[in-house]
Amino acid sequence: MSNIKFTFNESRVANEVMQSRQKSLSAYVERLNTIVASGVYETAESSIVVPSDTVILEDVMTMIDRTCNSNLKYIFVVGIGGSNLGTKAVYDALVGLNDGYRKRVPNIIFIDTIGEKLFEILQDICNESIVHPDEVLINVISKSGGTAETIFNIEALNAMLIEKLGGGVRDRIVVTTNEGSDLWNAALNLHIHALAIPELVGGRYSVFTAVGLYPLGAAGFDIGSLLAGAQDMRLDCLKSTENPAVDSAIISVEQYTQGFSIHNTFIFKPELESIGRWYRQLMGESIGKRKNRDGEEIRSGMVPMVSVGSTDLHSMAQLYLGGPKIIFHHFIHAHTETQTVIPDTRLFPDLVSDINGVSNNKLMHAIMQGTQAAFVKQEIPFVDITFEHVSEYTLGEYLQFRMIEMMYIAELLHVNAFNQPSVEEYKIETKQILSTK
Amino acid sequence: MSNIKFTFNESRVANEVMQSRQKSLSAYVERLNTIVASGVYETAESSIVVPSDTVILEDVMTMIDRTCNSNLKYIFVVGIGGSNLGTKAVYDALVGLNDGYRKRVPNIIFIDTIGEKLFEILQDICNESIVHPDEVLINVISKSGGTAETIFNIEALNAMLIEKLGGGVRDRIVVTTNEGSDLWNAALNLHIHALAIPELVGGRYSVFTAVGLYPLGAAGFDIGSLLAGAQDMRLDCLKSTENPAVDSAIISVEQYTQGFSIHNTFIFKPELESIGRWYRQLMGESIGKRKNRDGEEIRSGMVPMVSVGSTDLHSMAQLYLGGPKIIFHHFIHAHTETQTVIPDTRLFPDLVSDINGVSNNKLMHAIMQGTQAAFVKQEIPFVDITFEHVSEYTLGEYLQFRMIEMMYIAELLHVNAFNQPSVEEYKIETKQILSTK
Repeated sequence: MSNIKFTFNESRVANEVMQSRQKSLSAYVERLNTIVASGVYETAESSIVVPSDTVILEDVMTMIDRTCNSNLKYIFVVGIGGSNLGTKAVYDALVGLNDGYRKRVPNIIFIDTIGEKLFEILQDICNESIVHPDEVLINVISKSGGTAETIFNIEALNAMLIEKLGGGVRDRIVVTTNEGSDLWNAALNLHIHALAIPELVGGRYSVFTAVGLYPLGAAGFDIGSLLAGAQDMRLDCLKSTENPAVDSAIISVEQYTQGFSIHNTFIFKPELESIGRWYRQLMGESIGKRKNRDGEEIRSGMVPMVSVGSTDLHSMAQLYLGGPKIIFHHFIHAHTETQTVIPDTRLFPDLVSDINGVSNNKLMHAIMQGTQAAFVKQEIPFVDITFEHVSEYTLGEYLQFRMIEMMYIAELLHVNAFNQPSVEEYKIETKQILSTK
Repeated sequence: MSNIKFTFNESRVANEVMQSRQKSLSAYVERLNTIVASGVYETAESSIVVPSDTVILEDVMTMIDRTCNSNLKYIFVVGIGGSNLGTKAVYDALVGLNDGYRKRVPNIIFIDTIGEKLFEILQDICNESIVHPDEVLINVISKSGGTAETIFNIEALNAMLIEKLGGGVRDRIVVTTNEGSDLWNAALNLHIHALAIPELVGGRYSVFTAVGLYPLGAAGFDIGSLLAGAQDMRLDCLKSTENPAVDSAIISVEQYTQGFSIHNTFIFKPELESIGRWYRQLMGESIGKRKNRDGEEIRSGMVPMVSVGSTDLHSMAQLYLGGPKIIFHHFIHAHTETQTVIPDTRLFPDLVSDINGVSNNKLMHAIMQGTQAAFVKQEIPFVDITFEHVSEYTLGEYLQFRMIEMMYIAELLHVNAFNQPSVEEYKIETKQILSTK
């Protein structure tokens, strides 16, 4: 039984619409089931095979055995977009996302874009915290093997580490890329560790491949449980045409066609913010398309955004409640065990007496319920997704739910969920600019 | 002369439209000039008086003298929305925004919403890093004095600190609030330090009051320079009806009325992300309005969002280039001095040869220019804002520019830029839920 509860009561889509759309998806659900049963990587949907691919897990576990040790302090994840968003989603959810203070050993440092402040920090870590190669692991992740920022960053990081440590750095690098990419071949030539990404699994669907499993496993998380959650949710979301992924997909598409052009992941547990950022890529790239599958120009796509409650209520609530009705909200929150209760002896006993005896969870929940109640009064549609708890298992469930949901959304919109043709446009221009300088 | 360069070439608004709208704003520009000249707090626009208010600066400097010392390690800024977004914008821009690693003494820890991971961290800091009250400062900021999350958090933090340090905590607290609020009165009764926010300056316009000046000054930043930048930009933006704030406002409103419902602050310098988050509140609350100034139901408002280049190109570029044309982009970047150049001896010399001999700034700039070139080809409008450098001065300029721009936008849309009536809706519901539990 799933540890995530989906509530669609306030989605404001009529039952008959739901039923008719469910039927329209039956052939596609069938197709996904066939792919899972086959266990082979032959279609664009191949990523749904991954959670039960024991070879991937074994390769990752072997690499973890080979590269991890009790002295490990920092894991540098050098990758951008699909190469780090899933890992960061899981890591931040389990460790906490707090700028300026994250104590964990080993600590993952995510290096995505390039910035001199980042290099200052890396230099600082190199200078002050590291004395032996065993204390670091560098996981360079690029599906194509040719991502400019990623290659820039690994070159800069590698130079810093060599300057500090002398030799031994190369053995602490693990490359994750398509088998046969230039990066793959370069790694083999240099006897650098390498893990393969299945060719047909795109970056935004790759969190359960070595892309996510290796750094998370190396950092000590239970990747078996992550995959178990994914497998169980996959079963739920392929069971019939009446399941949470199908229903959520239909609701999103219905809202979209009725003018809700923005999809807001409204997180009410701050450390889950990064799962919203992961979803931005999944949605942005999967359905933000100039042409549909018949080649007709459509310029479709919901615009994904992320809000964090209650923080963003203090910046965006006015707009959400009073502004144009073009935002469709997905509330995401979680039950939780640890609690902080307002102390009996208060500093300001007369201020905000509502919170006397209230725990942090209760207050946060009341604020979320209050927001939902205000939305109901304003007839603003929303979906509610509650985690029973936050763990590798439930995160595996959630990420798998979203990836299958996205395939259904694309199927309903008749767009290709797996390509990203427009991305080349800015890359070509950038290449030209670099070549003429 | 301004250290920020505004380029409106690709805004795709006709000259005659610009000129006619400029004229329509002339009375309002006149009005703002009169308010600045008067130097008094009597109108909704009073926040533009603040940058040259020497009394505010003196009060803050006196409080800094009284409360800061060389042992100070942590400044806890307990506040949410307008009470911390401006401070965080400046702090992150100057220090760097890197989750998991921020070394600075004194380090500001921002405590806005409530979350148990945050309490774990605070407990950890209390247990391991603090032995004397002088090492901490707690700045509690709430304009109304009754923000539930803020009061919850100060109570929890106060209890933790007392448990660790015994006495002396109360002297390390500075309250910033409206003079006469319940919090103000409670602070006076308890002999807790207090700084006043001018009644007529709303939270989202308050960064240059004690709200932003005190924590930034206590952390050692040059708040005089911040204010000097604000004053110089204020002069620029009130000079005639042809100035950057007027032009930017007209362009945003024109794009909005032509269907660009989303305003994307597209940051190409990662540490500036928080100035985008500050702007979300400024725009969301100032123009996300159910009714216009005549009381007519309009449900207007651009939806502000923030993207970070190049990170988000790897999640959102497909949508921006291929998806619906409803997003209007403001590119924000900065020239910079420190540079990291790709080392001559590369680990992977054959990969991405474009980056050989290229600095991080040059690569980032090429990516941004490439993105702009692709936008031009797709006829996607944008504005370009370049900081000559990132400093207290230019940040003061930028924040002031945006606040005046927002007043012009609201004037053009005929909405009240200074209230937030809908926010009460969820607060009332939340109060009810808490009271029945």
